[in-house]
Amino acid sequence: MSREIKNIGKTVNLPPGTLQYTGEGEGDQLIIMTRYTEKSIESKRLKSFEEFSMVEDDSTLWLDVIGLKNPETVGEISEILHIHPLVQEDILNIAQIPKVEEYDGYLFTVTKNVFFREDGFLDTEQISILLIRNMVLTFQEYDTDSFKHIHERLKDSVSLRKHGALELFYSLIDSVVDNYFLVLESIGDEIDSVEDKLLENPNKDILGSIYHLKRELVYIRNILWPTRNLTSSLARGEFVEIDERISLYFRDIYDHVIQMIDIVETYRDICSGMLDTYLSSVGSKTNEVMKILTIFSTIFIPLTFLAGVYGMNFIYFPELNWKYGYLLFWLISGLITAFMIRFLRKKGWL
Amino acid sequence: MSREIKNIGKTVNLPPGTLQYTGEGEGDQLIIMTRYTEKSIESKRLKSFEEFSMVEDDSTLWLDVIGLKNPETVGEISEILHIHPLVQEDILNIAQIPKVEEYDGYLFTVTKNVFFREDGFLDTEQISILLIRNMVLTFQEYDTDSFKHIHERLKDSVSLRKHGALELFYSLIDSVVDNYFLVLESIGDEIDSVEDKLLENPNKDILGSIYHLKRELVYIRNILWPTRNLTSSLARGEFVEIDERISLYFRDIYDHVIQMIDIVETYRDICSGMLDTYLSSVGSKTNEVMKILTIFSTIFIPLTFLAGVYGMNFIYFPELNWKYGYLLFWLISGLITAFMIRFLRKKGWL
Amino acid sequence: MSREIKNIGKTVNLPPGTLQYTGEGEGDQLIIMTRYTEKSIESKRLKSFEEFSMVEDDSTLWLDVIGLKNPETVGEISEILHIHPLVQEDILNIAQIPKVEEYDGYLFTVTKNVFFREDGFLDTEQISILLIRNMVLTFQEYDTDSFKHIHERLKDSVSLRKHGALELFYSLIDSVVDNYFLVLESIGDEIDSVEDKLLENPNKDILGSIYHLKRELVYIRNILWPTRNLTSSLARGEFVEIDERISLYFRDIYDHVIQMIDIVETYRDICSGMLDTYLSSVGSKTNEVMKILTIFSTIFIPLTFLAGVYGMNFIYFPELNWKYGYLLFWLISGLITAFMIRFLRKKGWL
Amino acid sequence: MSREIKNIGKTVNLPPGTLQYTGEGEGDQLIIMTRYTEKSIESKRLKSFEEFSMVEDDSTLWLDVIGLKNPETVGEISEILHIHPLVQEDILNIAQIPKVEEYDGYLFTVTKNVFFREDGFLDTEQISILLIRNMVLTFQEYDTDSFKHIHERLKDSVSLRKHGALELFYSLIDSVVDNYFLVLESIGDEIDSVEDKLLENPNKDILGSIYHLKRELVYIRNILWPTRNLTSSLARGEFVEIDERISLYFRDIYDHVIQMIDIVETYRDICSGMLDTYLSSVGSKTNEVMKILTIFSTIFIPLTFLAGVYGMNFIYFPELNWKYGYLLFWLISGLITAFMIRFLRKKGWL
Amino acid sequence: MSREIKNIGKTVNLPPGTLQYTGEGEGDQLIIMTRYTEKSIESKRLKSFEEFSMVEDDSTLWLDVIGLKNPETVGEISEILHIHPLVQEDILNIAQIPKVEEYDGYLFTVTKNVFFREDGFLDTEQISILLIRNMVLTFQEYDTDSFKHIHERLKDSVSLRKHGALELFYSLIDSVVDNYFLVLESIGDEIDSVEDKLLENPNKDILGSIYHLKRELVYIRNILWPTRNLTSSLARGEFVEIDERISLYFRDIYDHVIQMIDIVETYRDICSGMLDTYLSSVGSKTNEVMKILTIFSTIFIPLTFLAGVYGMNFIYFPELNWKYGYLLFWLISGLITAFMIRFLRKKGWL
Repeated sequence: MSREIKNIGKTVNLPPGTLQYTGEGEGDQLIIMTRYTEKSIESKRLKSFEEFSMVEDDSTLWLDVIGLKNPETVGEISEILHIHPLVQEDILNIAQIPKVEEYDGYLFTVTKNVFFREDGFLDTEQISILLIRNMVLTFQEYDTDSFKHIHERLKDSVSLRKHGALELFYSLIDSVVDNYFLVLESIGDEIDSVEDKLLENPNKDILGSIYHLKRELVYIRNILWPTRNLTSSLARGEFVEIDERISLYFRDIYDHVIQMIDIVETYRDICSGMLDTYLSSVGSKTNEVMKILTIFSTIFIPLTFLAGVYGMNFIYFPELNWKYGYLLFWLISGLITAFMIRFLRKKGWL
Repeated sequence: MSREIKNIGKTVNLPPGTLQYTGEGEGDQLIIMTRYTEKSIESKRLKSFEEFSMVEDDSTLWLDVIGLKNPETVGEISEILHIHPLVQEDILNIAQIPKVEEYDGYLFTVTKNVFFREDGFLDTEQISILLIRNMVLTFQEYDTDSFKHIHERLKDSVSLRKHGALELFYSLIDSVVDNYFLVLESIGDEIDSVEDKLLENPNKDILGSIYHLKRELVYIRNILWPTRNLTSSLARGEFVEIDERISLYFRDIYDHVIQMIDIVETYRDICSGMLDTYLSSVGSKTNEVMKILTIFSTIFIPLTFLAGVYGMNFIYFPELNWKYGYLLFWLISGLITAFMIRFLRKKGWL
Repeated sequence: MSREIKNIGKTVNLPPGTLQYTGEGEGDQLIIMTRYTEKSIESKRLKSFEEFSMVEDDSTLWLDVIGLKNPETVGEISEILHIHPLVQEDILNIAQIPKVEEYDGYLFTVTKNVFFREDGFLDTEQISILLIRNMVLTFQEYDTDSFKHIHERLKDSVSLRKHGALELFYSLIDSVVDNYFLVLESIGDEIDSVEDKLLENPNKDILGSIYHLKRELVYIRNILWPTRNLTSSLARGEFVEIDERISLYFRDIYDHVIQMIDIVETYRDICSGMLDTYLSSVGSKTNEVMKILTIFSTIFIPLTFLAGVYGMNFIYFPELNWKYGYLLFWLISGLITAFMIRFLRKKGWL
Repeated sequence: MSREIKNIGKTVNLPPGTLQYTGEGEGDQLIIMTRYTEKSIESKRLKSFEEFSMVEDDSTLWLDVIGLKNPETVGEISEILHIHPLVQEDILNIAQIPKVEEYDGYLFTVTKNVFFREDGFLDTEQISILLIRNMVLTFQEYDTDSFKHIHERLKDSVSLRKHGALELFYSLIDSVVDNYFLVLESIGDEIDSVEDKLLENPNKDILGSIYHLKRELVYIRNILWPTRNLTSSLARGEFVEIDERISLYFRDIYDHVIQMIDIVETYRDICSGMLDTYLSSVGSKTNEVMKILTIFSTIFIPLTFLAGVYGMNFIYFPELNWKYGYLLFWLISGLITAFMIRFLRKKGWL
Repeated sequence: MSREIKNIGKTVNLPPGTLQYTGEGEGDQLIIMTRYTEKSIESKRLKSFEEFSMVEDDSTLWLDVIGLKNPETVGEISEILHIHPLVQEDILNIAQIPKVEEYDGYLFTVTKNVFFREDGFLDTEQISILLIRNMVLTFQEYDTDSFKHIHERLKDSVSLRKHGALELFYSLIDSVVDNYFLVLESIGDEIDSVEDKLLENPNKDILGSIYHLKRELVYIRNILWPTRNLTSSLARGEFVEIDERISLYFRDIYDHVIQMIDIVETYRDICSGMLDTYLSSVGSKTNEVMKILTIFSTIFIPLTFLAGVYGMNFIYFPELNWKYGYLLFWLISGLITAFMIRFLRKKGWL
């Protein structure tokens, strides 16, 4: 979370309209231009948008920009397609929350791709998707292969190609949302494993694991809630770009998001439950440790005192000279022990 | 919960429209076709929908499909009845939340049957119910006899048969919802038994039981909330398929669901209360153990020191040679003990 | 709560329309028929509704049925008055939540009378009230004198009689709701007494008392919330049976319910506060006990060691033979004690 | 809170329309009649409303009734001004929540004046304000000088007099609400002082103070929330009696109430935070106490054992006769101590 | 928070309309008058508004008042511009919550500038912004350079100058809101640093840090929530002064505020998680300390008792005279130790 907030700082007090990428993506920028009709598909890599020119026909065009290191790329294509300055800023400022906005002639969607970094922490990549008539524009921060299977399906599947840009737009958002399930699945596995440890042998590492899980869940919940609004807007048919047929499919995505929110809330409940259980297991263990200490102490403390008494060096000490003194000492010790054991049993500690 | 989320993973990145059952039901598939009018009823088992053909008359038809191992069955009947691909997917993808959706000419309902597995954990079975004019289609995951009594009542009760498919549709949903009461009843019994243990003799197992109860309640709450929306939609008369007479009956189911949600929330409150009580009883017990230890220690530690003193071997040690030294020792010990007991009494520990 | 949920179980999987009382009321059934105009009043006991026949005049009729042991009674009167089968079921199935429903020609209200059982636990009795033109029908589970003062006021007060059935309907609901105040008053007294104990001398029983109070508050809150909706519907003039004049009076009841909900929430806050206070008082006490133990131990443990040293039997042991050895021992002991006391004072434990 | 709920009990089961004061105000009743125009003002004390008669001119009339011991006073003036019986009851039944209601020809407002009792607890006084054309009627429970400065400003300020009854009505409500700020200020001071103690030297009294603060905040919150609705209704111009000019001023009061609710919620958060801090400081202190005990015990327990060994009286005991035995004892003791100190250091306890 | 509430007290019971500054700003008052068109800009300092006179042309005028020590300044300019008395009060009473209000011919906005005081605590400065046709009026409490960069950008940027007063109004609000990001960034850094300490070496200072962070978050949340309403009103185009073009930009600010609220809630969650973690780490540490104490005690207490026994001075003491007695003692001691170690291992404490 702090990564994002830090990067917001970069743009504070810049005059509005300044294009500056606030993320940390470092790789080379890549532009994949795909043009297809139901029957044919053609794909090539562009170095920059200077090579690009608009062709007005009935084919569908997908411009997939990977890497935002060069903000001027966004500026170039925006000029060609008359994209609003605020949209350009939002594409480059990765601190956006998922949202969909309708501008004059196009839909602008910000989504978040969630993935596990190599150090095991969750991270996000901002993916902006624009639907402009028969054209789809996507901007990804990293080269994480998020849309690789879409590129492949486009080549193989006539059914995907025949419905044009809107179907592609749907497939891209569906792909981003479906990916959350995989992340949740992985978190679910982690919860199961922590839960097993908790019931078998609770130790201090569990605390860290639960804390880590809770942060991950907060992290993903913060993405799911605005995604819920995004998909709900698309499903309700608020936008003229979305026809009734595809609305049904967005309702399906919406259902998935709702379900994932349910799962996240359930997981949060489970984590809280695990924390409570851990806390009280610590209390129970302290209690048990104390019991053992108290049992030993209450039994041996009086006995040790007694032994100390008969170790005193008084000259006039009648018991010491008595023949059965030592025997009596063990007798008294036995009685004290028996009495203490009975006392501790009554307390339920033995 | 993790079972469901895992199975979602199976369908991620499959092209939309692929039919794949995501559950774990293993038994043979069974199709029971029942055709009835007010006066007559006829029931037979089909091997597949290839044997099935539409007959247009005023009888009511119920196709009850048990087991989803063969997804192609869903495809076959869907083709005959023109069922939307998304509905087909939802029937087979058991990770749906309870919902009702209106399609062109039919109502599609997803419900969840809740039952206790043999290992004592709650599990769910997805039951999809379609109402298509004078036909009802049901898809169950397992052969759990969920609708056995409906099959029987159909044979015996004219009143159920005479109102056609809508009355059957209502009876099926009523049956699923009523079943939740039995599960809640069983959870209520468990709560009572844990509560008794808690007040009599709280031990570590209680923690596990409360944790288990809480997860069950989260589980069932996650089913009840969307069921609330489902029944509310049916009761409000949002759908042309539902006439005013039967709306009243759905309002009755809706009332039941509301009441069950109340009960679940009450149970959650009770569980939290039991956890608090357990936690503070652990604290109280530690406190009591410490008190005993402290009482024994504070009384005997000074006495043991005194005995140690008179056990020293100094050559010039006046008290040792004094005739009443030993007597004096017991006197001083008695005084110290009396003083300590008074001190502890003032503290309220004795 | 578990009582109610258990009784729901009784009716699960019964065909709809079966009349079965799900409560535990055992006493004989009693039917009190009261017929009155502004000027006259006549009251008699019926054995069953077979003795009853409708008379169409401008008098007001109140049929007060006490005890639901014989469900057929409900059936008989329902047939005469054309009452919907769902209403009949609701009257007999005591697991209803308070509600008001409008049927064709009559209003159906379910309310809950709350009282303390002899064992000190809260219990409820379901009271159904029907307003049918100039007739009021009430069904009570037990003979708890809930409406005794209404019967009496009817005899004495012309002002109550002159406004007919609607005024009676209002008075009955007012009486049920007013009764909640008495229950809350009693809970308030209990809270005050627990609070006093908590501040004076917190012991283990307090935990049970707080737990008990919390369950009672959950119990009554579950009745107040739906009662809020009930009275709000009646106050808002949603029903043609309720005229504007009496709406004002229902707004008054509604205000009372809102206020009681406030009180219940306040009481719940107070109970949580008391629990926190109890918990941390346990922690404080353990802390105090530990402090005493530690003070005694840290002072005497080094001294006892020293005494032990001079109790050793080494032959070559210079100090033992030294004349001022014993004196020195006490000197060193005094120094150690002084040092320890200073150390403990710096810690703030003495 | 319990004071109010007890007094509700008084009116339960009384026939509606019975006038009975449910509060505890005991002082003599006082009626101050003030009649003023922009230019002149005249004020006198009435003994009862028998001396009062309506004069129809363009002057403004304020009847300020202090003390409700004689409920018949309310009845007398109500008869003259045709005030609804429910309003009369509400004036006398002090268990009302703040509200505004419009009746035929007049506005009825219930507000609560909050003050600290002499024992330091919060208490409330119910103040009812009626706006009847060019007349304002106020009923206060106690003679707490709540409106003293209004009486004074009326005499001094032409600007207050010139706008008639509506301006007076506004000023009275403004005065009641402004008073809450003073109470909140006092609570804020208390919080600051508890916070200081908490950070310096947390002791058991803090727990009581926090508990006390929390109850006060619950108490005042329960008054602020309905006051919010009251002022919102007046600001939104729901009532014909309130013109647009004065609505703006009520919006100002509304803003104040919203802000006070914010402050109360913040204070509650702070109190919860202080409780958490206190609780964990208790835990930390116990931990520290235990550490000291453990350090002393682990160092001296082995040494004391060793001393005990060499204090044994076996006849065949080689070390005792060895010349350097005693020296060796101190050497071993030194080694053990060094080892233990290293061990404890590694644990981070020294 | 308490600073603000205290200052509210100052104005309680003052007659409405009295102008009194309730803040603590002490510096000299400064009025910067800036008049600009797209092409030219002219800026000068006024001593008071007596030097000021209205000029009706198409230039834009910005009056920036810094310091509110002299409330009469507000009165003077208000008279010239016909500003409502309530607005004048709100400018001077710094206890306002952020809000926007439309008056006849102008928009009145209250915002809060948040900054860290020198002692590390958060503080706020109230900034009121009025938009009156082609004029913007700002009132700041302190000379904190909040708008310094706006003054500079005005001089440099034609694009800011060419859109007139509305663009300036937007830039000022944007600047205030952007500043919150910097504060959140700083809080985020603090959270990261506390989190690191918590995982490495949790100590008592952490508790204070978490408590401090929580209060800061409550503080800023209380400003963000009303700011959300403020920007939402401006974005929704509720006001005629705001045209559609600039609404888009306010929607952008609104998005930022929503995102900051998300961040604050996330931070609060994290703080709660850190508190839980700290609390249970204290419990774990006490447990560990106790374990060490118990291990040492349970091993050495029986041994010390044994040594004590053989230190007794009974005359008839067979073992003492036995040749292998001393050897046997060590043997028994070894056995006891072995047994205790095995016992403790089984408990999992070694």
